Amino acid sequence: MNGLKGACIIGQSGGPSSAINASAYGAIRAALDSPCITRVLGALHGIKGVLEDDLIDLGLEDEEELAYLKNTPSSELGSCRYKLKDPEEDASDYARILEIFRKYDVRYFFYNGGNDSMDTIAKISRYMREKGYECRCMGIPKTIDNDLYGTDHTPGFGSAAKYIATSFMEIWHDAFVYDTPMIAVVECMGRNAGWLTAASVLAGEKGFGPDLVYVPELDFDIESFTRAVKRVYDEKKKCIVAVSEGIHDAQGRLIASYASGDLTVDAFGHSEMGGTASYLARHMKRLTGAKVRAVEISLLQRCAAHCASKVDIEESCAAGRAAVEYAVSGVTDKMVGFARSADENGGYRCDICLLDLATVANAEKKLPREWINEEGNGILRPFVEYCLPLIQGRSDLCWEDGLPRFVRLKKIKAQP
Amino acid sequence: MNGLKGACIIGQSGGPSSAINASAYGAIRAALDSPCITRVLGALHGIKGVLEDDLIDLGLEDEEELAYLKNTPSSELGSCRYKLKDPEEDASDYARILEIFRKYDVRYFFYNGGNDSMDTIAKISRYMREKGYECRCMGIPKTIDNDLYGTDHTPGFGSAAKYIATSFMEIWHDAFVYDTPMIAVVECMGRNAGWLTAASVLAGEKGFGPDLVYVPELDFDIESFTRAVKRVYDEKKKCIVAVSEGIHDAQGRLIASYASGDLTVDAFGHSEMGGTASYLARHMKRLTGAKVRAVEISLLQRCAAHCASKVDIEESCAAGRAAVEYAVSGVTDKMVGFARSADENGGYRCDICLLDLATVANAEKKLPREWINEEGNGILRPFVEYCLPLIQGRSDLCWEDGLPRFVRLKKIKAQP
Repeated sequence: MNGLKGACIIGQSGGPSSAINASAYGAIRAALDSPCITRVLGALHGIKGVLEDDLIDLGLEDEEELAYLKNTPSSELGSCRYKLKDPEEDASDYARILEIFRKYDVRYFFYNGGNDSMDTIAKISRYMREKGYECRCMGIPKTIDNDLYGTDHTPGFGSAAKYIATSFMEIWHDAFVYDTPMIAVVECMGRNAGWLTAASVLAGEKGFGPDLVYVPELDFDIESFTRAVKRVYDEKKKCIVAVSEGIHDAQGRLIASYASGDLTVDAFGHSEMGGTASYLARHMKRLTGAKVRAVEISLLQRCAAHCASKVDIEESCAAGRAAVEYAVSGVTDKMVGFARSADENGGYRCDICLLDLATVANAEKKLPREWINEEGNGILRPFVEYCLPLIQGRSDLCWEDGLPRFVRLKKIKAQP
Repeated sequence: MNGLKGACIIGQSGGPSSAINASAYGAIRAALDSPCITRVLGALHGIKGVLEDDLIDLGLEDEEELAYLKNTPSSELGSCRYKLKDPEEDASDYARILEIFRKYDVRYFFYNGGNDSMDTIAKISRYMREKGYECRCMGIPKTIDNDLYGTDHTPGFGSAAKYIATSFMEIWHDAFVYDTPMIAVVECMGRNAGWLTAASVLAGEKGFGPDLVYVPELDFDIESFTRAVKRVYDEKKKCIVAVSEGIHDAQGRLIASYASGDLTVDAFGHSEMGGTASYLARHMKRLTGAKVRAVEISLLQRCAAHCASKVDIEESCAAGRAAVEYAVSGVTDKMVGFARSADENGGYRCDICLLDLATVANAEKKLPREWINEEGNGILRPFVEYCLPLIQGRSDLCWEDGLPRFVRLKKIKAQP
């Protein structure tokens, strides 16, 4: 199996993160350095770039400039939400991909994304095998949500967790600066998994964390929420709550959707867009008359490269590199994952492992029930011990004129 | 006038910033070092701490710990929105302040805040003079809004501007990662002045800035906004807009109120804002069908100490120090300000100047009209040249366990 020669394509997919480009950089760098890989192509906007022959020649980029990729947020090659059809029903996309692979003699395909992306790779690989076209396909994980099955954690999560915990410490300082009683509700991303919201409790390690935490792993009950907030508020005259955007009641109805019945309608008949935090803040204001604050950490939690974790960026880069090195050594149909172990001093250590694409695709990893307190409104110590090593250190992002120096690629269209 | 001996009180007021504690630190440090100042007291929650005899003895804090104050966001002594009455109408607050000043032999009063705070100091100082009680009263400016009259810029603005420009670069990367057309509206703070929103154009220096910028200095016209956004969107298939929370139409009606009806009003008659970006994003979605994104930078722009500007933190600290040194040398009834000049190489240089409290109090400095383009939807080069020096460098914030190390004061109650 060794010594397969040919071009490689690297693509990115799914939502952005602060670390996905570090993975791309690890893969691109390893591919440029590999004697087996003849050309390193980038697919613009993920698999759509392959389908539309929208490829760039990464070998034509300046090497020093390319290194800035490591600390640039979002997906520099562009992303897409395009879902390939089931090849049994409609194989036209796959036939087109094979055509492009043949055109550029592509023998290595690296796809950098979440669980949908792993599904995409698995399908492409199966099709290529059926058509007798040798191409090694590897997945490089990415998601701030930390919800990929089989890996201890995902590239991108550590940086998002660091940003959330840091911002939470800062919001805590801001929200409680006045002597007036206050309830603050801070909303983090996470539709089905509470990993990001749980990261707010790291701020509690410094004394500036949430009083209550609600994650989508458990049903949300507005009555017990109200009681819990009131209890803290009556005792401390302030209460700060972290909630996931995806919290829902026992009937599966999103709390964010409660807002539609509650809001004033504007001159055009449009109801105000209400997030979960702002709904819950207004709810508590109505009940207690307290001053309230709702903060949505919003997009920044997935793109704040200026506050990235060094551990996360280094691991993400290593994951990309490993995908290429394993593929060149003969491996295919695997996603690179992380296995946690201990170093000789019992400290955190992370090793690369390989996972079957089929195992990872479309499965979701949630917060273990035993890491959430019995009342369902707090996160326990094991999570802190799990998460703290992932946010360590600051990335080596360059600053220029007082601002981050992000990559500027030439993106020269690849010629066959 | 020299050699006045006695205690000093330092208080903080108004909205938080990433640099107000740097000013407090500069003042506390200088006061502790001054042979004239016998005790350094902190008023908890600004003037309310004086009225309620809620003072702490800052001389009892550990010196090393105190140094962490410099990089801790928000107002560590606590803030208030309490407005002193007009002494002609009701002098009871002033009488109480004099009583407390006498109780602790306070001869120096330093108040760290925005223009409302300068008004407070001026009134207190006048009352003390009328009662023949010698007390030197100095203002140390603070506001992320940069709207204080008479000073080239305000402590806290540079850090907020750096955070906004950095976040804007990151949001730009995130918002445009997909190949689908997109309109993004990003909302910055600023009720009456557009300085913070204008800072988004610094991101444009790196190629990742807004296409359009709307500030409250000019009337906002929804028709011309719509035309301008459509023009950019039709041409580039993406458009990113920066707006101030305080933009209003020619009738003075807030754009935020188009969506949310009546707004709550605080003790100073300031309304609580928010919702401008989401209103405008929905407006453009309705008209174009485009995918839209609304991001409110929210509280973080005034408390993100992890992204503070070194220039701002150093200058803020120097402003606090200067207030104490001037007071000890005999000055009173002044606010410390910044005067910009050039160093020997023509580079940025900032000198401390002194301004009459009366000149500063309740006056607002707005963006000059000539720094805004003719169409009223862009910010011109002179602003960039003005603002860029203020965001330079990174503060020397310590990180511990992957998170910022903020101060933890003992806050021991002062004994008379």
